[in-house]
Amino acid sequence: MAACQLNLRVGDLEGNVDRILGAYAQASAEGADIAVFSELAVCGYPPEDLLLKPAFVDDVQAATRRLVAATGDCVAVVGFVDGEEAAADPNRRASNAAMVVSNGVVHGVYHKRALPDYGVFDEERYFRPGAEAMSLYGVGGVKVGVTICEDVWIPGGVVAELAAGGAELIVNLNASPYYAGKTAVRELVVGERIDESHVPIVYVNQVGGQDELVFDGGSFAMAADKTVVALGPHCQEAVMVFDIEAPASSTASGSFSVVAARSTSGPRPPIPAPFSAVPDHYGEIWDALALATRDYVRKNGFTDVGVALSGGIDSTLVAAIAVDALGAAHVHTVAMPSRFSSEHSLSDAARLAQVLGCDHRVIPIEPAHAAFLDMLAPSFVGRDPDLTEENLQSRIRGVAIMALSNKFGWLVLTTGNKSELAVGYSTLYGDTAGAFGVIKDLWKTQVYDLCRWKNRDAGREIIPESVLTKPPSAELRPDQRDDQSLPPYEILDPLLIDIVEHDRVVGQLIDLGHDPAVAARIARLVDIAEYKRRQNPPGPKISIKAFGRDRRMPMTNSYRGERRG
Amino acid sequence: MAACQLNLRVGDLEGNVDRILGAYAQASAEGADIAVFSELAVCGYPPEDLLLKPAFVDDVQAATRRLVAATGDCVAVVGFVDGEEAAADPNRRASNAAMVVSNGVVHGVYHKRALPDYGVFDEERYFRPGAEAMSLYGVGGVKVGVTICEDVWIPGGVVAELAAGGAELIVNLNASPYYAGKTAVRELVVGERIDESHVPIVYVNQVGGQDELVFDGGSFAMAADKTVVALGPHCQEAVMVFDIEAPASSTASGSFSVVAARSTSGPRPPIPAPFSAVPDHYGEIWDALALATRDYVRKNGFTDVGVALSGGIDSTLVAAIAVDALGAAHVHTVAMPSRFSSEHSLSDAARLAQVLGCDHRVIPIEPAHAAFLDMLAPSFVGRDPDLTEENLQSRIRGVAIMALSNKFGWLVLTTGNKSELAVGYSTLYGDTAGAFGVIKDLWKTQVYDLCRWKNRDAGREIIPESVLTKPPSAELRPDQRDDQSLPPYEILDPLLIDIVEHDRVVGQLIDLGHDPAVAARIARLVDIAEYKRRQNPPGPKISIKAFGRDRRMPMTNSYRGERRG
Repeated sequence: MAACQLNLRVGDLEGNVDRILGAYAQASAEGADIAVFSELAVCGYPPEDLLLKPAFVDDVQAATRRLVAATGDCVAVVGFVDGEEAAADPNRRASNAAMVVSNGVVHGVYHKRALPDYGVFDEERYFRPGAEAMSLYGVGGVKVGVTICEDVWIPGGVVAELAAGGAELIVNLNASPYYAGKTAVRELVVGERIDESHVPIVYVNQVGGQDELVFDGGSFAMAADKTVVALGPHCQEAVMVFDIEAPASSTASGSFSVVAARSTSGPRPPIPAPFSAVPDHYGEIWDALALATRDYVRKNGFTDVGVALSGGIDSTLVAAIAVDALGAAHVHTVAMPSRFSSEHSLSDAARLAQVLGCDHRVIPIEPAHAAFLDMLAPSFVGRDPDLTEENLQSRIRGVAIMALSNKFGWLVLTTGNKSELAVGYSTLYGDTAGAFGVIKDLWKTQVYDLCRWKNRDAGREIIPESVLTKPPSAELRPDQRDDQSLPPYEILDPLLIDIVEHDRVVGQLIDLGHDPAVAARIARLVDIAEYKRRQNPPGPKISIKAFGRDRRMPMTNSYRGERRG
Repeated sequence: MAACQLNLRVGDLEGNVDRILGAYAQASAEGADIAVFSELAVCGYPPEDLLLKPAFVDDVQAATRRLVAATGDCVAVVGFVDGEEAAADPNRRASNAAMVVSNGVVHGVYHKRALPDYGVFDEERYFRPGAEAMSLYGVGGVKVGVTICEDVWIPGGVVAELAAGGAELIVNLNASPYYAGKTAVRELVVGERIDESHVPIVYVNQVGGQDELVFDGGSFAMAADKTVVALGPHCQEAVMVFDIEAPASSTASGSFSVVAARSTSGPRPPIPAPFSAVPDHYGEIWDALALATRDYVRKNGFTDVGVALSGGIDSTLVAAIAVDALGAAHVHTVAMPSRFSSEHSLSDAARLAQVLGCDHRVIPIEPAHAAFLDMLAPSFVGRDPDLTEENLQSRIRGVAIMALSNKFGWLVLTTGNKSELAVGYSTLYGDTAGAFGVIKDLWKTQVYDLCRWKNRDAGREIIPESVLTKPPSAELRPDQRDDQSLPPYEILDPLLIDIVEHDRVVGQLIDLGHDPAVAARIARLVDIAEYKRRQNPPGPKISIKAFGRDRRMPMTNSYRGERRG
């Protein structure tokens, strides 16, 4: 068995075929009888509305034909888009498919039956569910069944059907997006299918960042007794070659037709299964954020990033992740003090840049700040200062860092966290200006935890202790602190988790014991901030429910949810 | 028959019930036997992920119970969310439903069977398709069948089934988003169903703007001979009460059970059907844009808008639409000349504001422009001016108009058109800064046509002739013109329509006769600009395929589509 978890690129059909054939050659050389790749491997996942371009589906077919022609004795199971059924339904012409192939011969094609259409998934938009009769594939004397991703999440679904039909080993091709702790969920679900089927399952996932999603690899094989017998690395590519036990089917004569794909490859010494180290909770998140950032930057043709350093904890964390993702030589930090910035903000930013080894510059914004106040003075006669003047400073910084971005080709990373994004505690076109929001799916309390973890893990002070201990402040007016506008994050974050991740409304929040006035105010802020979130840059999903494609709320929304149960 | 096309608000459950009951009272008073409302009328359409909040679905039930209790003799057919099937599938718990009710008694509930999951629709994300046995409802001696929206788009679907079961009149509850010319498409589709069923169909649509969508009303009744016998107004609310012929079913004893909902209301003089004037092509678009703008502004709690006037045609058009939508007293225009702005830009902007009667101000950006160039000079040593300096001016304007917005509570309208949005010919956080992109779904050539139409329609020069005739320019460097960076719009727009609306790739564009180098360059620009479009504000869909929820392309996208067929 070879489980190939590769970092594929959406739309790079020829490049992906090259990557697949490279891993296939390695798997063959290491003696694999069967090499399994991830879901939609030929086109990368998710291709989104590229699938609505008939030429794209045709091009996937063409690239897949080249792949087929290059196969040898080892049986490849590869995800691709099957477009043969094109005529039937112009809105849903293609199938999310897996091909079983060797020596240039396609032994069979499976069409995914369970199409997820929830959370970040829109597969009903693109695909026809499979309905054709299924086959098993004889590989080295073992009857192998093929499933794709969501198929294994359905109790009594395809897995049970294949097992009842005589399958002795089931392979499952995935494009399973990461969220914190998902490995355990996957193992739980696959274990449930084994409880039903008593057949070992090999789960293969892709690796890499794709816009808002990050795929973390972590492919694994689970034996018929539910022992995990092989585990791929987290957030890294791997071609894992190993032996797996596949007990003969208890279904004496299975009902499915068996297609001979490869005879037994003969006796040889057993190949032990690789078992990658399991990262701890925050190490897992850190690596996912770094991978997402590296891939968004590089797959979009950039090498370098710019980060505005306020001296606060969010921008500190983003700069540290960026350095891990891209190397210090590719991370440029900028401090942009205003008349309200504290000395410690400037010194903390400079110290961080020094610890990380980044190119750092300081651009005081006072000249533009003064100029705008003068330009606006005739309009603002008789009006007191308010949020306008605070936003102004943030937007001046946005203009300055975008100018550096334009001049030097840096991609700007934004530094907003999920708590701020939830309540709209940010300035559109100001601190939200940029291409990728690295920590937009981390609650503020998680930001602190991740920073502390980093210092522990590194065994030295990468995140300055002073940044961890000072009270959070946007420093847009004298002596400003976040907790003048918002509840303390220890109160705010659990409330926001109830609203955003558990979909609870005000009436329920009060029933749960949250302060009624705070719950009503914060729930309203979350609703109102939807328009801001729509104009925020994308960032990696690392929670069970992220803002973005995962949570599609109307901007114009009159619902208050204040009725008590 | 009463066809009630109302402007409902997403999430305003109690308000919507009040609006429905108001129209119901009017319909009853005018003698209607049956009053038909639009799809999901109780919660407004589309509620998006509000539907994933169990409390929201419960609250829709509660609001619907109040509606039921308030009904009298007239039979109401009302769209709502039915949550009774909650337990079965937590990801798809609700049904998109229509209730038939009178005198506080629910005679029956129909669950929509055809769930659209393409274009702007995501109904598979939220709803279970209906599968229960259908009923007919006896109203005034006529057997009435109930269908919802997409149901009538399916050949041989629910309409055919109802007719075969004995239906003599079919009502169809819609939330059908506008695009230019859609009335004719709806009549064509409903006509096809009548060809199959020979039963008259009453098509009721909602009215109003909701984020990216605008619902244009235009409810109609089509007789068994496919004559349109009643037509509601475009983009306005209406309670249309009229008599309609419903020939007895040719199916002698229909197979569906008939629920008695109301006996014949007795003889009275016939009520002629209303037949609204049909606007011409551009009048239709103009009214849709004005409605979308008015509703986005007001439903989000704003009264006034700000528009940055460059003196160019796009901002001119947006200001004119805003004045139609909100009244001149609520539209504030701002000219922000730079060192590169021409005299005619300033005078054209001032003249327009005068013609429209808007509050107008001029804020030269030179002080901030000079300040930024100074601030950035140490970083930019040895670098030639490039796009950086052009974007800088646009962003300074963005900062200034957002400051006015913050200070005075104006919602900022952006002025980018679809051609610019397609190729990324705009500055993020500059001219794209704002809350609603009024003309973002209008190609540049349509912008000209719509302006010329407006002058013709008004019988006077609202759009200054000078604006219509001068060459388009962003005026961000001396003597700049759009056609230095882009092909002329007469060449560009048809190419973009092929790419965006017809999903064609480079190879096909060349086969179609587009210039190979131009096609490859423009197709690439369209792909690259996806990240910019994600951070653009929403704007009304008025074409068959708009940017936004209608076209979901990956930002990170390696597909080039250069293979020739």
